[in-house]
Amino acid sequence: MTEPCFDIAHLAHVEMYTDKFDESLDFFVNVYGLTVSGQDAHSAYLRAWDDYEFHTLKLTRHHTTGVGHIAYRASSPAALARRVAAIEASDFKVIGWVAGDPGHGRAFRFEDPFGHVFEIYYDTVKYAAPANERPQLKNLAQRFHARGAHPRRLDHLNLLSADVTEFRRFMETCLGARVTEMIQLDNGRLGGCWFTVNNKTYDLACTEEHGGASARLHHVTYATDTREEILRAADIFLENGVHIETGPHKHAIQGTFFLYVWEPAGNRVELANSGARLILAPDWEPVVWTETDRKKGQAWGLKTIESFHTHGTPPVAGKQEH
Amino acid sequence: MTEPCFDIAHLAHVEMYTDKFDESLDFFVNVYGLTVSGQDAHSAYLRAWDDYEFHTLKLTRHHTTGVGHIAYRASSPAALARRVAAIEASDFKVIGWVAGDPGHGRAFRFEDPFGHVFEIYYDTVKYAAPANERPQLKNLAQRFHARGAHPRRLDHLNLLSADVTEFRRFMETCLGARVTEMIQLDNGRLGGCWFTVNNKTYDLACTEEHGGASARLHHVTYATDTREEILRAADIFLENGVHIETGPHKHAIQGTFFLYVWEPAGNRVELANSGARLILAPDWEPVVWTETDRKKGQAWGLKTIESFHTHGTPPVAGKQEH
Amino acid sequence: MTEPCFDIAHLAHVEMYTDKFDESLDFFVNVYGLTVSGQDAHSAYLRAWDDYEFHTLKLTRHHTTGVGHIAYRASSPAALARRVAAIEASDFKVIGWVAGDPGHGRAFRFEDPFGHVFEIYYDTVKYAAPANERPQLKNLAQRFHARGAHPRRLDHLNLLSADVTEFRRFMETCLGARVTEMIQLDNGRLGGCWFTVNNKTYDLACTEEHGGASARLHHVTYATDTREEILRAADIFLENGVHIETGPHKHAIQGTFFLYVWEPAGNRVELANSGARLILAPDWEPVVWTETDRKKGQAWGLKTIESFHTHGTPPVAGKQEH
Amino acid sequence: MTEPCFDIAHLAHVEMYTDKFDESLDFFVNVYGLTVSGQDAHSAYLRAWDDYEFHTLKLTRHHTTGVGHIAYRASSPAALARRVAAIEASDFKVIGWVAGDPGHGRAFRFEDPFGHVFEIYYDTVKYAAPANERPQLKNLAQRFHARGAHPRRLDHLNLLSADVTEFRRFMETCLGARVTEMIQLDNGRLGGCWFTVNNKTYDLACTEEHGGASARLHHVTYATDTREEILRAADIFLENGVHIETGPHKHAIQGTFFLYVWEPAGNRVELANSGARLILAPDWEPVVWTETDRKKGQAWGLKTIESFHTHGTPPVAGKQEH
Repeated sequence: MTEPCFDIAHLAHVEMYTDKFDESLDFFVNVYGLTVSGQDAHSAYLRAWDDYEFHTLKLTRHHTTGVGHIAYRASSPAALARRVAAIEASDFKVIGWVAGDPGHGRAFRFEDPFGHVFEIYYDTVKYAAPANERPQLKNLAQRFHARGAHPRRLDHLNLLSADVTEFRRFMETCLGARVTEMIQLDNGRLGGCWFTVNNKTYDLACTEEHGGASARLHHVTYATDTREEILRAADIFLENGVHIETGPHKHAIQGTFFLYVWEPAGNRVELANSGARLILAPDWEPVVWTETDRKKGQAWGLKTIESFHTHGTPPVAGKQEH
Repeated sequence: MTEPCFDIAHLAHVEMYTDKFDESLDFFVNVYGLTVSGQDAHSAYLRAWDDYEFHTLKLTRHHTTGVGHIAYRASSPAALARRVAAIEASDFKVIGWVAGDPGHGRAFRFEDPFGHVFEIYYDTVKYAAPANERPQLKNLAQRFHARGAHPRRLDHLNLLSADVTEFRRFMETCLGARVTEMIQLDNGRLGGCWFTVNNKTYDLACTEEHGGASARLHHVTYATDTREEILRAADIFLENGVHIETGPHKHAIQGTFFLYVWEPAGNRVELANSGARLILAPDWEPVVWTETDRKKGQAWGLKTIESFHTHGTPPVAGKQEH
Repeated sequence: MTEPCFDIAHLAHVEMYTDKFDESLDFFVNVYGLTVSGQDAHSAYLRAWDDYEFHTLKLTRHHTTGVGHIAYRASSPAALARRVAAIEASDFKVIGWVAGDPGHGRAFRFEDPFGHVFEIYYDTVKYAAPANERPQLKNLAQRFHARGAHPRRLDHLNLLSADVTEFRRFMETCLGARVTEMIQLDNGRLGGCWFTVNNKTYDLACTEEHGGASARLHHVTYATDTREEILRAADIFLENGVHIETGPHKHAIQGTFFLYVWEPAGNRVELANSGARLILAPDWEPVVWTETDRKKGQAWGLKTIESFHTHGTPPVAGKQEH
Repeated sequence: MTEPCFDIAHLAHVEMYTDKFDESLDFFVNVYGLTVSGQDAHSAYLRAWDDYEFHTLKLTRHHTTGVGHIAYRASSPAALARRVAAIEASDFKVIGWVAGDPGHGRAFRFEDPFGHVFEIYYDTVKYAAPANERPQLKNLAQRFHARGAHPRRLDHLNLLSADVTEFRRFMETCLGARVTEMIQLDNGRLGGCWFTVNNKTYDLACTEEHGGASARLHHVTYATDTREEILRAADIFLENGVHIETGPHKHAIQGTFFLYVWEPAGNRVELANSGARLILAPDWEPVVWTETDRKKGQAWGLKTIESFHTHGTPPVAGKQEH
């Protein structure tokens, strides 16, 4: 069956590790502008102002930085069952059912060949705003409190893997994801691949690991309503001493307006805006970028900076990345 | 099965009637900023710069204004077959297969109880930009020529019907559409209903017909990447003598930033921006607005102007609407 | 001498009265986004993030709302002396030298024929940002903390007077102000007049008092860098229960993008953006708007709402304005 | 007298040389978005949509690129006379009175020590829009036709000189200009200096000539109302094959949001937006940037690209600049 499968509804949340928990939490709340939904001994549960679930970022105290797990929500109990069956029938590593974080019901965990842990679930906890976070407009999940950069919702994440082609097989097999754009290197390998499970242009990207490491995170991204909010965020990051790595500028790939910073522990975090762009075509064919294309730089000519190719979290011991 | 059915991929195009064809065409090309894909004896085929199909607006010479037909594209041949079967099994009026416009293959036509003609199809003609419309970025459908208001893609349309509840049954039965928001009147009727077949917040709205007419159009809308483009468009409309009916402002319902104008023949046309808002929840529950809610006006307090409740196309003979 | 006189450099600050001091102060700091420079028994001294002087708003506890005094800074000690001489030589009411607020040196006070108190001074206190308000960029006066609407600088104020022509004589005589735009009523009176002492399009406007009162304030306005910040502010006002009177929209007169709200005590406050518009011509001739022009509404057609013609502060006893 | 002099009202126009006249003219009209006011055998006279004079750019056929002359308008006939007297009394080179371009009356010409020709005049030709360029709003100079990047008004230019300190003496002596910001190099020289004659943050900048040439132009800049228009212009430049040199980004110096491109003949042209920033303080003290400050890059960290230090027009024979 070649038609879109949509068993998976959307990227649901990312667990980020930090070895500077207090500084990271302060950054995400007061500078990046997320809201704390809940907190336990190890983790804080955070959300953007219009995320409909309890949390979209689980920030966890850890001896390293990087990504804990990546969660997607299924479209229905039946769709979840179909996905679990497909994963179990595959050659990818199954971890099995777990009880789930405070923000959702039981989840099925599995792993990509590069050590990233994924989970899928259906039962969830929709955010019930407490009195002080209740919005004036009933179609919003939460109050527009306008603190810090204040993005609207989780958008996507970017993982690193040694073999993007193999990662693509994982995403297609396990999540039924579609490839919307990709980089075809002159050496025949895929340099990067952008995936979606719905009408978003992408919710997960995978680019080549150049540090010889495994299970690393490249970045996590939230979406703003406007490009102006990203320009404004740049001033906020500047004033708060946050390391701005690159941007604001517009990606050639996907056309996303972007800004990359490093949160206090070193994890790369992005703010992005895709304008009105959606992938509506059910038979969308991946856009293929060659090395020649890539030499033109980003959409308006900005050269990709070196650390973008080398910095991932956790960092690779003994390598200078910044 | 309560899970989302996505048999229908997206709203594909709208046929608009005009009794001032040359003036309307000039407006859509030079002021609104669409591109002509093709033209025949009766119609011009128009598109926004990032619509992926041949056309999204069919502008047709006619003795009246209003809407000719509304087209949705199915997700696959199998999904199209499922939808056709569902429509044929229903009590709604079937027109049957037609050859289809230049921009797509054969289409299955049917009618809502209020006289609006719908069609669904799968086979399509993706836009192949001629040399002078070829974009610099390979992930775009067309050159960003920046002429006039220049919206990015078709967004939605709004129809009028005497019984919104019955229209809702039509949309759910025939298209598998979901309701994302609605107006519940004190008299028990639905005052309006917003539908989506994918992750967009809505692609079709239906509001109550107050003129005693049938098969009327309220408006057709294209999406811009930014709110700033809508503010800029207001200046363009002003300078070109276009009747600005209301806006720019932000709707309470759906939170869309809007601007409504009348094209030269009188059809209402909107530019809109939804920011990063999407309906990602597969189990989204419709937001219900009461008359009390509506009395607060639009999001920032603007009162809905009278003509918005009375003007549709074609106009009702003998009624003053402007 | 018909050449521009620039003895006066700019509008410096406005003293606003409030009979709900705590609520007003909370609004100006946490919602409107100003910063407290200092506070004494009766007043708080507030500033926008790029105002170069100590304060631009003096918020004073009072048994009424309205305006306390209006201050302009002179271009030099000599220019100040020239202005004082001109005022003393005129038939306008002189109050005389006062010691001045904490934010500046001695000031010369005088009064317009409608009871508004003005002052001019040269010696000032430039803002010395304390450690927690020190900006990263050395050409800024203060940190971009991004709290609330967070306008950049004081822009203008609008006073009410029973005789705008006489008020114009006052502004030209005492401040050497130029008229940039004005409303010429069919009855021969001036309906409104916009004044500038520098390259700004206006720093003070006067419109007709329709309530039979004297010394009233219509509104005080701060400028934002972008129109997007005003759209964003509308959401902030909405969420904070602030009464949005009208806007965002674009004025026909002066072309300013505007948003009017009432602070908790009832004083009207505006956020405005003029884009790149300046009055550079030294021989600028006032733009004259007739009643016929005004009937077209604001730039994009919005009708001026009734309260805009009736509400001033303090309110007129026994009149319903909202 | 240390008070601001304001004998000079504003930067009036720049004459740009091009050795590809037809391509340059097409660029300025159809891509950059200026309007032709008039044309003669050697030159086209161009203007932005809200420039109040006949023209602000004189584009002249020439065997080189670069700048022909730079014109400022005086505040009054008396102010013009004062400036002429000051220039004649100085040691700077006087050229004398010339009849003036079509857009203004007789002008007094003089030269800086690096070969740039300046002129000052008072009598001018205010733009009288022909029928097809007449605006709907009577306070605008011209119709908002929205063609290409479509900036609002002339903003500033940047010249190169071997001795910025000497250039500063020229600007202060001849034009009564004020320095708002400057770069102090470790070697004791000025690396750059930003001047204003009114409330604009700058209308002329001078940076060090590194090519051993004289009388060269670094760039000419027009102002847009919003930053969004600059982002949009980047897409327009991209689609039209225009070389984007750097940006969009925000300068640390002056805080201007910028985008630099090269017009077809190679002259650097900028679009810029300063938000609501003005120099209102009559006793503004120059902001001094050190080499250490400059090493932080632009406001959000972008490194200044090499060609920005080397490319000027006309190019220096035998040097590779791009």
